Amino acid sequence: MVTMQDVADRAGVSLTTVSFVVNGTKPVAERTRQRVQTAMADLGYRRNVVARALASRHSRIVALVFPALEHRLSATALSIVTAAASAATGRGFNVVLWPVAGADQLEDYVSGGLVDGVLLMEVTADDPRIAVLERRGVPFGLIGRTREPDGLSYVDMDFDAMVTTGLDHLVDLGHRRIGLLIGDLDSPSWAGYGPITRTEAAYRAEADRRDLDAVVVRAAQDPRSGHRAADELLADHPDVTAVLALNEAALPGFVNGLLAAGRAVPDDVSVLGIASSVEAIATADPPVSAVVAPGPELGRRSLEALVDRLTEPSTPPLQLLLGGELRPAGSTAAPR
Amino acid sequence: MVTMQDVADRAGVSLTTVSFVVNGTKPVAERTRQRVQTAMADLGYRRNVVARALASRHSRIVALVFPALEHRLSATALSIVTAAASAATGRGFNVVLWPVAGADQLEDYVSGGLVDGVLLMEVTADDPRIAVLERRGVPFGLIGRTREPDGLSYVDMDFDAMVTTGLDHLVDLGHRRIGLLIGDLDSPSWAGYGPITRTEAAYRAEADRRDLDAVVVRAAQDPRSGHRAADELLADHPDVTAVLALNEAALPGFVNGLLAAGRAVPDDVSVLGIASSVEAIATADPPVSAVVAPGPELGRRSLEALVDRLTEPSTPPLQLLLGGELRPAGSTAAPR
Repeated sequence: MVTMQDVADRAGVSLTTVSFVVNGTKPVAERTRQRVQTAMADLGYRRNVVARALASRHSRIVALVFPALEHRLSATALSIVTAAASAATGRGFNVVLWPVAGADQLEDYVSGGLVDGVLLMEVTADDPRIAVLERRGVPFGLIGRTREPDGLSYVDMDFDAMVTTGLDHLVDLGHRRIGLLIGDLDSPSWAGYGPITRTEAAYRAEADRRDLDAVVVRAAQDPRSGHRAADELLADHPDVTAVLALNEAALPGFVNGLLAAGRAVPDDVSVLGIASSVEAIATADPPVSAVVAPGPELGRRSLEALVDRLTEPSTPPLQLLLGGELRPAGSTAAPR
Repeated sequence: MVTMQDVADRAGVSLTTVSFVVNGTKPVAERTRQRVQTAMADLGYRRNVVARALASRHSRIVALVFPALEHRLSATALSIVTAAASAATGRGFNVVLWPVAGADQLEDYVSGGLVDGVLLMEVTADDPRIAVLERRGVPFGLIGRTREPDGLSYVDMDFDAMVTTGLDHLVDLGHRRIGLLIGDLDSPSWAGYGPITRTEAAYRAEADRRDLDAVVVRAAQDPRSGHRAADELLADHPDVTAVLALNEAALPGFVNGLLAAGRAVPDDVSVLGIASSVEAIATADPPVSAVVAPGPELGRRSLEALVDRLTEPSTPPLQLLLGGELRPAGSTAAPR
């Protein structure tokens, strides 16, 4: 293994000078710096991450925190994780996965001092994990947002805009009875979960504004619950001709439920996904039209915003909402 | 923040003694050790992970390596990741996610010196990443295995046993024409992928042994490809009365394809998943019987075996194959 002393010998400089260049701890004259870097390249010297962490007091590791045991990650959540890990690589950072159940457990993790910063996933309205990070002075960003995110750094989906895009599409087709399929907030693990509360509020406000009746059906995050929700909808609201569906995992079962009850999609009931992952939509069977979720962009932008703040602490918080694009795929049409 | 010196002052011992206790670098008399630990508890002292890493030359971080960009993680793969991260917590380790495309990129990651060990996911028959880890002297384990894994540490699913369990169930019901739905090995990103080659080989050998004709249909990892595979099967092999399906992502589309073609499941065609995740099976719509994959156990055992070897380098390699349990859910029955 090539050491810093080997680099110093070859470049004809002191070990201290090599350390300044490697760790960026003090400025070094440009010509000297280049000589050191040439020697590093010639010898194939690579910086040791742990040694650098101690020298600079930065580990260049950020944690991605998600409550693994409480509910499964959706396809969209998975695309966020993958994009964040890839973006970290591009910036010379590593991502650790913290499957953390609550605020107390997060405190244990953070106290280890391993990470420079934290990204919280699956953020709730009054997320108790934020107080832990603020008290400990750990830079953090939210993937999602709290009820009152003033002053916090977050990247979230623009659920209002996605609901509007979806309703515009269905109303333009001529629908007037449009339901909403959404996650079940009564389940304790979803209490206060932002995407559900925001989407439902946006739907109710937009329905009101357009003088439509609001019809909400709920399902747990799985196909079979979606099937049951279709049965409920047909029993309680047989006049609904179109449905917006936020619940990605329940959606295939919901469509199957409509078909099993003898309803044609889209001729009897149009179905439009909201914030669905691109991959799931591209290959759904039967095909489903959707306003697609900006999952990969959400992961990438969140990671980069956090790294920007770690690199340059005066960077102001980023507050960014990302909308989604309509991708028609044959499951929406004019009502009969 | 409480320092080691604070602990030393309170315990009435030297800083060096505290360091020996905290980092486990030298044995300390039991009574002294207890005094130090009481002082640590009283003061709320917590070890700094980075400082400890430098003191002990161990970071207590292991990397989970998966080729994120080449194909999506299945529900089973996701259950492995989550279980490994949770098991790491229990052992005082952290898991970093390395979405690494190939051997060269892995070399870059490893050279950073961050991790004590590596777990490789999505292992192929002649996996080029192994040579990188051996050359660098990084302890590693495989989740999956190569064609000739002698001397390596691995935990994998027992595909032979799962195929046998599945075929036994279908043959006991009276089926004699039993097909196999499997991933498409022609896709470059799946070339040499162990689960596919092993399951197909086991199926062909078992079919031969039982004097059954082998019928293999292939699909990419998504529902729509599964639907097309059902159409192909019905066109080319209309006499098949039961299908084993390894391809978890294609399976719902495959069942939909059978139903759309007017075949009843299970009355016309029985369908049995192989190595499917418990969660997907528990909530599939329509329900699907399966031999469930031991995903969470795979993740936990792999992580623990690696940590055992990091803690005690003389631990011999673990070579473990985990079978799966039959969970009937109504998609298999006697042939008409």
